Amino acid sequence: MSDRWFQDYVPGTTSEYGPIRVDEEEVVDFGRRFDPQPFHVDAEAASAGPFGGLIASGWHTCALMMRLLADQYLSPVSSLGSPGIDELRWIQPVRPGDELTLRATVDQARLSRSKPDRGIVHTRVELVDQAGAVVLTLRAMNLIRTRPDGAR
Amino acid sequence: MSDRWFQDYVPGTTSEYGPIRVDEEEVVDFGRRFDPQPFHVDAEAASAGPFGGLIASGWHTCALMMRLLADQYLSPVSSLGSPGIDELRWIQPVRPGDELTLRATVDQARLSRSKPDRGIVHTRVELVDQAGAVVLTLRAMNLIRTRPDGAR
Repeated sequence: MSDRWFQDYVPGTTSEYGPIRVDEEEVVDFGRRFDPQPFHVDAEAASAGPFGGLIASGWHTCALMMRLLADQYLSPVSSLGSPGIDELRWIQPVRPGDELTLRATVDQARLSRSKPDRGIVHTRVELVDQAGAVVLTLRAMNLIRTRPDGAR
Repeated sequence: MSDRWFQDYVPGTTSEYGPIRVDEEEVVDFGRRFDPQPFHVDAEAASAGPFGGLIASGWHTCALMMRLLADQYLSPVSSLGSPGIDELRWIQPVRPGDELTLRATVDQARLSRSKPDRGIVHTRVELVDQAGAVVLTLRAMNLIRTRPDGAR
């Protein structure tokens, strides 16, 4: 992982990482700072609200997914950032105490035409809870450096 | 804003909110917790890296955008959450000290066929920095309650 390059992202390969736990205090802290809707920040209001209880901001769920990607799928030697995400779907509410596992499938890996030291990797991402339910899906694009001459 | 309903999201309308400031300490804290890539968490490594300095995690930028949406575009009386986002693009790096303004254009507002108390609003979002550069774009979907009988 600490030495993973563009060539190591093989289309068709699926990997699983995690789980990562959804902490109630963090749900509320994240909500207060970034997404202060009642169902993210106020347990009492949330229990009378559309989700019947506190749920994580969808952006918090994305951030937890990113933690798994950054720790286990991307590599600091080759990751050059991301141009964007397609078809992000929050499929089920994520609640405090949930344990989320990342499933990442390499969809496509294409060398850059203009910059031969990198390529773009398209990844299909699913986040799955402890009951096996898919709670989030998205398609990620990542710019990844090719293995330099001499690196193994 | 505290009393905004589905009917108040009129297609073709554009509104601007903000700005919100990108704080360096928060960039690093967010990165450490959720996206510990060198260019988000380590100023020294970042200055030698692909962006020539610290940049905010793309998910932090999304979270700051959400704060403006939650405070000024959505309403606690009617917001029922979001099924997802399309075509999220991180167009330019966002750096500590940047001041980001949200531009939200209602693209489409359609009543639910199955649940007549709500509709889905499609919004085109741009986040613009203090120099006028668009740094992030996306298309958001939001479920919004219709105005109840008797409400003004």
